Amino acid sequence: MIERSPLAPVAFPDLPAIAGVTPRIARARYKAWDRCDLTYVELSEGTAVAGVTTQSKCPSPEVEWCRDALPLGSARALVVNAGNANAFTGHRGRAAVEAIAAKVANHLGCLPSDIFVSSTGVIGVPLPVDKAEAGLEAAFAASPCTWEDAAATIGTTDTYAKGARTSAMIGGTRVELVGIIKGSGMIAPDMATMLGYIFTDAAIEPALLQQMLSTANRQTFSCITVDSDTSTSDTVLAFATGKAGNAPLASSEDAGADAFQAALSDLCRQLAHLVVRDGEGASKFIEIAVEGAESDSSAHRIALSIANSPLVKTAIAGEDANWGRIVMAVGKAGEPADRDRLSIRFGDTQVATGGLAVEGYDEAPVAAHLKGQDIRIGVDIGLGKGRATVWTCDLTHGYISINADYRS
Amino acid sequence: MIERSPLAPVAFPDLPAIAGVTPRIARARYKAWDRCDLTYVELSEGTAVAGVTTQSKCPSPEVEWCRDALPLGSARALVVNAGNANAFTGHRGRAAVEAIAAKVANHLGCLPSDIFVSSTGVIGVPLPVDKAEAGLEAAFAASPCTWEDAAATIGTTDTYAKGARTSAMIGGTRVELVGIIKGSGMIAPDMATMLGYIFTDAAIEPALLQQMLSTANRQTFSCITVDSDTSTSDTVLAFATGKAGNAPLASSEDAGADAFQAALSDLCRQLAHLVVRDGEGASKFIEIAVEGAESDSSAHRIALSIANSPLVKTAIAGEDANWGRIVMAVGKAGEPADRDRLSIRFGDTQVATGGLAVEGYDEAPVAAHLKGQDIRIGVDIGLGKGRATVWTCDLTHGYISINADYRS
Repeated sequence: MIERSPLAPVAFPDLPAIAGVTPRIARARYKAWDRCDLTYVELSEGTAVAGVTTQSKCPSPEVEWCRDALPLGSARALVVNAGNANAFTGHRGRAAVEAIAAKVANHLGCLPSDIFVSSTGVIGVPLPVDKAEAGLEAAFAASPCTWEDAAATIGTTDTYAKGARTSAMIGGTRVELVGIIKGSGMIAPDMATMLGYIFTDAAIEPALLQQMLSTANRQTFSCITVDSDTSTSDTVLAFATGKAGNAPLASSEDAGADAFQAALSDLCRQLAHLVVRDGEGASKFIEIAVEGAESDSSAHRIALSIANSPLVKTAIAGEDANWGRIVMAVGKAGEPADRDRLSIRFGDTQVATGGLAVEGYDEAPVAAHLKGQDIRIGVDIGLGKGRATVWTCDLTHGYISINADYRS
Repeated sequence: MIERSPLAPVAFPDLPAIAGVTPRIARARYKAWDRCDLTYVELSEGTAVAGVTTQSKCPSPEVEWCRDALPLGSARALVVNAGNANAFTGHRGRAAVEAIAAKVANHLGCLPSDIFVSSTGVIGVPLPVDKAEAGLEAAFAASPCTWEDAAATIGTTDTYAKGARTSAMIGGTRVELVGIIKGSGMIAPDMATMLGYIFTDAAIEPALLQQMLSTANRQTFSCITVDSDTSTSDTVLAFATGKAGNAPLASSEDAGADAFQAALSDLCRQLAHLVVRDGEGASKFIEIAVEGAESDSSAHRIALSIANSPLVKTAIAGEDANWGRIVMAVGKAGEPADRDRLSIRFGDTQVATGGLAVEGYDEAPVAAHLKGQDIRIGVDIGLGKGRATVWTCDLTHGYISINADYRS
């Protein structure tokens, strides 16, 4: 068993029930293990849904299924299978998703398009329909479970269950948001980077929920990377049951819309950080803030070039203030940059400015900062006003150990 | 000391002297070590030169110096400093390069623009001019050295000296080509990827030599990657003394030009492979051949996406035929691809075709192939006629050990 990440929070947070949302778990035994691996979340009638999915050109059939169903905007259930990604399995993989959706739709008396399905685990082995169906039967009969149970059940190589909460006031009504997420490897932006599910009792139109989720995604899930590898199955879904009784949000101009957007983005940021903190082998959480680029998107690409550089990530693992590798990563990003205008900061200490090492800078606070678990790297490109922040982790022996031996 | 790569050739090859080329080495002591770290190669009058350099937006002053001098087409000497890259050192770095060129030009009675300079090692520390000058004095006075000594002296984290040879017939005249190269980390294409020097006694016009080197570079140095990180100092230079006495080549239509191009490309391929075989921590040499892409450049990008994927590289390190990770890497390349047309091969065994695992394929030859040191991965995208081959190595604990602790 893999040890709990040293960057994990001390405990799973206390998350409230969300009216209209009932999670249950069961053993489908997708692998030869004795743990729950099927999560079934029932949603009350009238639940709105929005989602973002991987940019991979080879997505799983689950991703294609969700993409087809999302424009309809309504959801009655979510099924998440852990242990088998069902990706690259041809018509048999597609048939498995259809069978799951049909079975749940029949159980609830709704349309198959109201059922959202995700799977995570090994690629290339068709999801066994008999196991999925037996697992669903068990889940239908099970008592509702806690959020922590659901968060643990969607996980694979995760070393801890991941959940977060926020709330917002819409008019005079308080709405709750809860999220669970899984992911620790094959994590790179390009949408999102893992499986994440957000549940809220807010009343909100699906189109607006989609717009807000896309905004939040750009600022959060698209700004994290563990290993630059983008999964074929990445999916984030947001479900809004409307049970809070707020005046339904339909436009970003509505009262309370800004508060809800802020709460949603905050929740997504919490969830994204939880994924990075469980990055395979991670011993340091790294924030990379780039400013002074020619545009925000240029800053984003430079920040990701730094975050994905194996040499930067191993330097941080070694607690080495090797800012030369940051210059290298800025240089290879392909974005406008001028060597002689670059400034670099570790923590609060400027170590290089105007293209030169800061003569006699105090190494003590830099060394102390690098010994910690939360590392901040600041880069000023010195050309314009573009800025971006991304989050990643270091690259350690743990990553190699986990990934050189995962399938076997 | 780092152990010799298990992928290294058994011995340094037997390389011939090249008429008009005289290598010497000396101790400049750029670091606190007792080894030669300055290489000085004198070239006879009339030597033609060509070169390719890093695409980094933050190149070293040595790279800028070479770029300025290359269009003039003539060379009288090469100086390579090991242990200090002199990159990101502002005007002091530039001044160091100028001082080196001036000193050698004065010694030889030629123009400073005839002197080519490279430096490799730590970034951000200005090259100490006094040490460079003393090292040059020692080199001027030293006896000529062997190619193996020169190849060892340009190295930094390299675990073995790298050299190769080819020859070609131009008309009735045999011309010799010799190359030395260094590099084992911060290796990614985008030109070349390291410091490499080619010496030939052929007579060839600089413009044609440049054209031929660029062609060879596209097929060789631009097709290797160790860690996706592009150095600020990458440089490959080719020097042709003309001492062989062949009818000078001036156009690619000339008799013997094809033979020379073939020999040059072959030499560059040998040198590129030597770098990959010394990839930091490498235990496997991996060839990735992509066919059936929409274009050759699309195939090249897909092949590099596979070659740079940490999950693919760790799977190979673990001798795991995890073709799902290859699907993932194809999907994230952003190039046209269709999940259901993909075919994947390990060695000579088809493991997936038409978007599905090959039912009951024989795992024994795949397992045997993956236990070897030379791994071949074949991917057919199934869309068009584009093809490309790239070379990389696996990602192991050795890479982490070397890079989490290099500067200290």
